Amino acid sequence: MSKLPIIIDCDPGQDDALMLFLALNAPELDVRGVVACGGNVPLARTELNCRILVEMAGRTDVPVFAGCEGPMVEPLFTAEYVHGETGIDGIDFFEPTIEKQAQHGVDFIIETLRAAEDNEITLVPTGPLTNIAMALVKAPDIAAKIKQIVLMGGASFEGGNVTPSAEFNIYVDPHAADVVMRCGRPIVMFGLDVTHQVMTDDKVVADMRALDNRVAHASAGMLEFFGQYDAAKYSADGGPLHDPCTIAWLLEPEIFELKACHVAIETRSELTRGHTAVDFWGVTGNTPNAMWAYKADRTRFFALLTERLAQY
Amino acid sequence: MSKLPIIIDCDPGQDDALMLFLALNAPELDVRGVVACGGNVPLARTELNCRILVEMAGRTDVPVFAGCEGPMVEPLFTAEYVHGETGIDGIDFFEPTIEKQAQHGVDFIIETLRAAEDNEITLVPTGPLTNIAMALVKAPDIAAKIKQIVLMGGASFEGGNVTPSAEFNIYVDPHAADVVMRCGRPIVMFGLDVTHQVMTDDKVVADMRALDNRVAHASAGMLEFFGQYDAAKYSADGGPLHDPCTIAWLLEPEIFELKACHVAIETRSELTRGHTAVDFWGVTGNTPNAMWAYKADRTRFFALLTERLAQY
Amino acid sequence: MSKLPIIIDCDPGQDDALMLFLALNAPELDVRGVVACGGNVPLARTELNCRILVEMAGRTDVPVFAGCEGPMVEPLFTAEYVHGETGIDGIDFFEPTIEKQAQHGVDFIIETLRAAEDNEITLVPTGPLTNIAMALVKAPDIAAKIKQIVLMGGASFEGGNVTPSAEFNIYVDPHAADVVMRCGRPIVMFGLDVTHQVMTDDKVVADMRALDNRVAHASAGMLEFFGQYDAAKYSADGGPLHDPCTIAWLLEPEIFELKACHVAIETRSELTRGHTAVDFWGVTGNTPNAMWAYKADRTRFFALLTERLAQY
Amino acid sequence: MSKLPIIIDCDPGQDDALMLFLALNAPELDVRGVVACGGNVPLARTELNCRILVEMAGRTDVPVFAGCEGPMVEPLFTAEYVHGETGIDGIDFFEPTIEKQAQHGVDFIIETLRAAEDNEITLVPTGPLTNIAMALVKAPDIAAKIKQIVLMGGASFEGGNVTPSAEFNIYVDPHAADVVMRCGRPIVMFGLDVTHQVMTDDKVVADMRALDNRVAHASAGMLEFFGQYDAAKYSADGGPLHDPCTIAWLLEPEIFELKACHVAIETRSELTRGHTAVDFWGVTGNTPNAMWAYKADRTRFFALLTERLAQY
Repeated sequence: MSKLPIIIDCDPGQDDALMLFLALNAPELDVRGVVACGGNVPLARTELNCRILVEMAGRTDVPVFAGCEGPMVEPLFTAEYVHGETGIDGIDFFEPTIEKQAQHGVDFIIETLRAAEDNEITLVPTGPLTNIAMALVKAPDIAAKIKQIVLMGGASFEGGNVTPSAEFNIYVDPHAADVVMRCGRPIVMFGLDVTHQVMTDDKVVADMRALDNRVAHASAGMLEFFGQYDAAKYSADGGPLHDPCTIAWLLEPEIFELKACHVAIETRSELTRGHTAVDFWGVTGNTPNAMWAYKADRTRFFALLTERLAQY
Repeated sequence: MSKLPIIIDCDPGQDDALMLFLALNAPELDVRGVVACGGNVPLARTELNCRILVEMAGRTDVPVFAGCEGPMVEPLFTAEYVHGETGIDGIDFFEPTIEKQAQHGVDFIIETLRAAEDNEITLVPTGPLTNIAMALVKAPDIAAKIKQIVLMGGASFEGGNVTPSAEFNIYVDPHAADVVMRCGRPIVMFGLDVTHQVMTDDKVVADMRALDNRVAHASAGMLEFFGQYDAAKYSADGGPLHDPCTIAWLLEPEIFELKACHVAIETRSELTRGHTAVDFWGVTGNTPNAMWAYKADRTRFFALLTERLAQY
Repeated sequence: MSKLPIIIDCDPGQDDALMLFLALNAPELDVRGVVACGGNVPLARTELNCRILVEMAGRTDVPVFAGCEGPMVEPLFTAEYVHGETGIDGIDFFEPTIEKQAQHGVDFIIETLRAAEDNEITLVPTGPLTNIAMALVKAPDIAAKIKQIVLMGGASFEGGNVTPSAEFNIYVDPHAADVVMRCGRPIVMFGLDVTHQVMTDDKVVADMRALDNRVAHASAGMLEFFGQYDAAKYSADGGPLHDPCTIAWLLEPEIFELKACHVAIETRSELTRGHTAVDFWGVTGNTPNAMWAYKADRTRFFALLTERLAQY
Repeated sequence: MSKLPIIIDCDPGQDDALMLFLALNAPELDVRGVVACGGNVPLARTELNCRILVEMAGRTDVPVFAGCEGPMVEPLFTAEYVHGETGIDGIDFFEPTIEKQAQHGVDFIIETLRAAEDNEITLVPTGPLTNIAMALVKAPDIAAKIKQIVLMGGASFEGGNVTPSAEFNIYVDPHAADVVMRCGRPIVMFGLDVTHQVMTDDKVVADMRALDNRVAHASAGMLEFFGQYDAAKYSADGGPLHDPCTIAWLLEPEIFELKACHVAIETRSELTRGHTAVDFWGVTGNTPNAMWAYKADRTRFFALLTERLAQY
């Protein structure tokens, strides 16, 4: 079986970290590169975090790129209040040996797509969609090469997290999200509706810690830190594993239930900035532009995660 | 025990009808008047419906007023696709003997409030908030007389019904809703989050039909019609009893769980027009301006409704 | 010749004062009433000012009404920085003997229109359009009775005054302006484009002072004060006589050149709130909804004003 | 005297063509490159036009780049109704021998700036600001290298051209304009207020045609075509020479009068999309971010243009 070629674009972030670990030892995936964007923490930090995580996963062959520092139009808004100063608080840091690629992340995306066949490359963005949108605006011819965009972002029935009406990734760069949602290629969206169904708890963390490898231990450490925010905010036992949903779906789609919906992005109002208007019940008459994930099998999700972390 | 003086402002609508029936024979309430507004169907029809329903309830002593035909700024948008051409399809119609009051509904609200003590009158609007907002703009001195505004409107975790992001009443007149939410008086909101927890089903309708009085039979007839829309849209067994939640809370507040939240109204963007940004998790830092209902005890709700209808 | 029946709605304001003086001794006009609105200064002050000015004009037969305190949706924004604390700084104040009418100004407008023939009454609003819009929303049937709305408001080629993009009256209540512009009746607009062509100067003020009557002296006093703001802001010799343009056009339309244009009001963006998008060159394809004044004969304008003030 | 290094970014467009001719034989300027953007006509055409014009000017040493096809967020809106199908209707076409550079125009801008000293390069954009904004978002470090941005765009006292409230270049990509206006570098803006003071007429065209060279003849041909639109719309004698104002100011700044103003861009409302809120009178309290040209000496402008065209 041939591997699925993917490009990951992320802003680690503890949940991005778990997403990377899940992707980087998956025999089903051919990770062509990892692009960092400004988001949970500034770009200088997300880019460093990507190299640390890729090296920790033993995949020094995977190139890491820095993309855009901040959104297309709005100033950058970061979330150290959730992720800690480093974005991946909870890990034991080290200076990675792999170096940042000289090429800009947006150009890596463009060149990789241009070198591909039509409908070949899967994009997996789990931060603000700045780099993907910038690539589409700079080089609209690449759209045809995209097989699908499997992204973490948005919220409908769950409500927002950064504001009452918006999820963080879409809020940070609503214009980029708007560009991506209108790009005409297949989109699969994992928003808060489903990521809040895969909350960590003490058992999940303990199971990871019981695994005998560095990646699993680092994962456990990050999740312990990450769970504190939601524990305080929602009185939950842990935190939502947003970003790994994307890779989990690529590996085991049966974990999720999805529905074809039209999703529009609010870019005009400050109050509802970044709101995802998900037409779940088909009231607008607009043709669906995304598969919207609305249900997750938590047991299978964590089974997959633990099983794959065990293989490090 | 003294009765609670209330003014009802509504746009029947089958669920408004049930709300009126629940209010009009409640020994706990002193219904000072019923004001009609344009909403589910045009004003000429909602005003007639109010008189029919008030007369059916045997309360020809309760004056009925016509308020505004349509919203403060936007053109009127009606919902015959939900409620049928009459708004209360499912009922046996008759020509009411009681007449529409000559006074404008907005002026009835203003004069009733001006004649009251501070903090005395409860307003119960279950349609677009046009009349309430118009009264507040025309006569801002009345605000002090308002004890509380117990309204049906908005949506947060449930998502919208008329658009993906907005509930009908707030969508129709977002500017009025904005005025009301900023009026500085206590507000209790029953939005889709909770009204979709009190869905009718065949048993509810059958229980009503089994009651031996005209009001209960009319209720059953309307709910049979009303349930069809949601049955088709959501594959539900019936429809959500939106408006009666307001009166049910006045009669038996223990049926509901509420949380103090800041609620802001989207008036600037067409995409998210009428969206209620409910700060359920307190992320904005804004001081709460409403009690937001988020949980309903369906069994107790329908028990109350059936018990009260039985008393007609 | 029959007199033209008009209702004046204003927020004096020195230039409103001159407008009132011009109207109140005009044999061509039948001033049915003067309604005050919140605008340049708060309602309590504009209402008092209206009574002072009407009494000073010797027209104690003209009833004065208080309308709305503030805008339909936005909080009230006043302009004491232009007009002084009283709104008519520069006048010798006195306690008027005429009393405020008990009826609300909005209801006076509605009842006067309802009692009239179709197409009979001219409305002359020279402040924020709150009262006119409230009347139209409360009683949409009155529209047919309106002969025309001759208003001061808006800006196109002149740019704004309160913000770079908006004129004060429209800025203060953009939603009311939006309602009025879409009411379907003939509208004649005097915006900054033309009012900045009728700037006072020392000679104008001196000519008024040379007239031997109290009204002219009061006018001179107010214009001396009023001219200071624009003198400081624009290095002009005096101030723009915004509001009198409306009455001047009714008395001597040849003073102005007008063009049929579509005018739309910005209500959605804070940056451009109250901007009047005047389609002077017909690029939008929208059917004109207003006659837009773009040129004034300054000499004739001040000749008319002085001649009429001389008749007091 | 050292030459001023500039990068031109344009969308020819007849007036862009004159701008290029003015720049390309100016001994004062070192034109490092010409970047095309989508605007007046699509990118494929503006890029070809740039090569034709550069070759016609005898400057085959100046590299020509294609930038972005369309705006950052909005779909591309073009103006064939003004410029004709080719953008430079009125010229004798030929197949240019110089080729389009392989490098993307955005990257040419970034690399040229990165290779420069701080405060060294002048950017001259005369179309939508897409390429400049994309460069700033992709590589924010380049801002320090920008000496100034001398752009054609916006309108204040003149009103808009593409809509009542907006000038074409800013309307087409308001988000890019917003990014540029907030970039923190010196900006000099030539909007409609001043470009409508440099209208062509028959004499201007005749003077050009009398010059004995191909560039001047091509200019005359293009202006004959270009003048037709404004002649029909405004009953003018010719058209406004928008884009050459930028280069004319670099060559002979005394032609223009400018004022330091804050300029904000409307991105939120469709009605006023791309409006430039120019705080000419300093009412907002915002620190100026641009020098806004408000007066032009038409005689000197056309004298400069004719003199320089004569030197071809």
